[in-house]
Amino acid sequence: MRGKRLTHGGDWAGYLEQYGQMPLDFSANISPLGVPNGVRQALIQGIADLERYPDPLCRELRRGPAEREKLPMEQILCGNGAADLIYRAVRALAPKTGLVTAPAFAEYEEALKSVGCRVRRYPLKAEREFRLDEGILEALTPEVEVFFLCEPNNPTGVTTEDGLLDRILARCQETGTRLILDECFGELLDQPQAHTRKNRLAEHPNILILKSMTKLYALAGLRLGYALCADGALLNEMHRMGQPWEVSQLAQRAGLAALEERDYVEAVRTLVRRERPLLGEGLAGLGCRVIPGEANYLLFQSPWPLEEPLRERGILLRSCGNYEGLDRSWYRTAVRTHEENQKLLAALREVLR
Amino acid sequence: MRGKRLTHGGDWAGYLEQYGQMPLDFSANISPLGVPNGVRQALIQGIADLERYPDPLCRELRRGPAEREKLPMEQILCGNGAADLIYRAVRALAPKTGLVTAPAFAEYEEALKSVGCRVRRYPLKAEREFRLDEGILEALTPEVEVFFLCEPNNPTGVTTEDGLLDRILARCQETGTRLILDECFGELLDQPQAHTRKNRLAEHPNILILKSMTKLYALAGLRLGYALCADGALLNEMHRMGQPWEVSQLAQRAGLAALEERDYVEAVRTLVRRERPLLGEGLAGLGCRVIPGEANYLLFQSPWPLEEPLRERGILLRSCGNYEGLDRSWYRTAVRTHEENQKLLAALREVLR
Repeated sequence: MRGKRLTHGGDWAGYLEQYGQMPLDFSANISPLGVPNGVRQALIQGIADLERYPDPLCRELRRGPAEREKLPMEQILCGNGAADLIYRAVRALAPKTGLVTAPAFAEYEEALKSVGCRVRRYPLKAEREFRLDEGILEALTPEVEVFFLCEPNNPTGVTTEDGLLDRILARCQETGTRLILDECFGELLDQPQAHTRKNRLAEHPNILILKSMTKLYALAGLRLGYALCADGALLNEMHRMGQPWEVSQLAQRAGLAALEERDYVEAVRTLVRRERPLLGEGLAGLGCRVIPGEANYLLFQSPWPLEEPLRERGILLRSCGNYEGLDRSWYRTAVRTHEENQKLLAALREVLR
Repeated sequence: MRGKRLTHGGDWAGYLEQYGQMPLDFSANISPLGVPNGVRQALIQGIADLERYPDPLCRELRRGPAEREKLPMEQILCGNGAADLIYRAVRALAPKTGLVTAPAFAEYEEALKSVGCRVRRYPLKAEREFRLDEGILEALTPEVEVFFLCEPNNPTGVTTEDGLLDRILARCQETGTRLILDECFGELLDQPQAHTRKNRLAEHPNILILKSMTKLYALAGLRLGYALCADGALLNEMHRMGQPWEVSQLAQRAGLAALEERDYVEAVRTLVRRERPLLGEGLAGLGCRVIPGEANYLLFQSPWPLEEPLRERGILLRSCGNYEGLDRSWYRTAVRTHEENQKLLAALREVLR
């Protein structure tokens, strides 16, 4: 069971144990530019007062997203990474029936099962490049109490077409379904503002939007995410569904500092925008089928097993064999710096030639 | 509801908001010697690789407590502070009926209620200095699925007499009750080894022991605790009851470094052992009734309201009015450095004279 918690990417610790050195990690979708300088400074300062308990209400921290997202503070709840908020939401809602897409981030289903919820899966089809289709509207029946939708989806990087996404919002309102819209990689799209639905929260109090600060700001090791929702009662209940001090004092300081890092964000987006197509073309040139993802990672199908040969070359790739709706021929790779991406392609060339 | 999360001590953030400066905080029971130097250094180094996800299995970190507690690694589960482990345990056990003492740490009851559990309270009597009595053995009936016992108790600082504690262990075995033995302040007793029951885990797989690293090492803002249990299935289930990455990468590094800090630990214990009686005598001399606590905090009853007058003097004290079994005449104070304790006594002298 505990081994099951290793099925995500980013298991550098297992690699270190096996090989005695750090891998080049393409298995976690994190900004390749490292922790921003301002955040690093804030953290060093923060070490001085670690003897203080974190503010359970994250009062100072929430002002940041509140201004940035132009929402009242009462509509924001911070968590120990977005994954913490997934579990809190599921516990607060205690649904009997939930719906997820297949493939999707595995923790939705894990969280739903942890409260004894029946999980329905809506299959995304490889021939449609895993893009969601209109059939989802029929799958959204009144029995479905919670629907997790990941935009862009993880591990595909694909977004739902705008018109369909709006119809999903309308349909969830009709059926009384809570829509948990996971926008954790939304800030890594080329045009984040064009796809987010945060401006629809007031008119759709049944939507809960999840945002992560660990991907864009390379803070995976620190854990910080937040939820946006116009239903204050739900956020309060989520807050009650776990300990009061879940967001560490360092994460709160880092979050505040990160929101000032506008140049860093622009640099990450520019890098991803430039490198994603290069990496995609490189993979296609090696005979892989590449799904046209729109974020800082790409899903592709390989004609040959890759995980072990790449490990031997010091590189971690995310095998997607344990995703519902995929099999062992599929892999997900992060988009990293030009030099790192070229190293990945060179290693793949050795394996696939 | 969210305001309810502020009923613990340590609300420096609320004070800062109101007064624009940091208080001298006696409301949280944290080592007064600050973050140990070795831990500080480890944290600064750790900031460099925050882009890595934390190891969900805490493989390196668990080796530390495993050696220290002389237990196999499989019997250790790390959490985002001990409070995280309280909620995970309750979710994994999903009890219908739970038992807590009154007073006790409030999160036991909050956690039990969050899974819809009926909570029975066993009253501790002021005339017995809140020491647990033999009546608890009768209260431990087979319907009681979980019993939370805090040793030393928070907020009283009192321990259960050794013979009775052993009979509680035996009784819980008879009734099939899970005993969650919270030893979070155990390392701050004068003789920690004399009171812990960690050497009884193998013979009592129904015991779960909670340990905190935030009090002894002044890491409240970072969050780190661990659970010890011979029932590996329970630890696995607890791990499943929430996100996989709950213990941040920094907390894992800090934990490893903290376990090397033997001189620091000795200095904290020496300080507490010397200052606790001085502070207690000072309080008694001002007309307060002082409960003979054995850890790094003292519970006392004041003839006069203290919280507001002390706030105005820049000092936070923990009012115990919201503890079951206490009322607003009771306060809990941390034992801090000699100079700080004298400041507290001087301020109290002004208020109580």
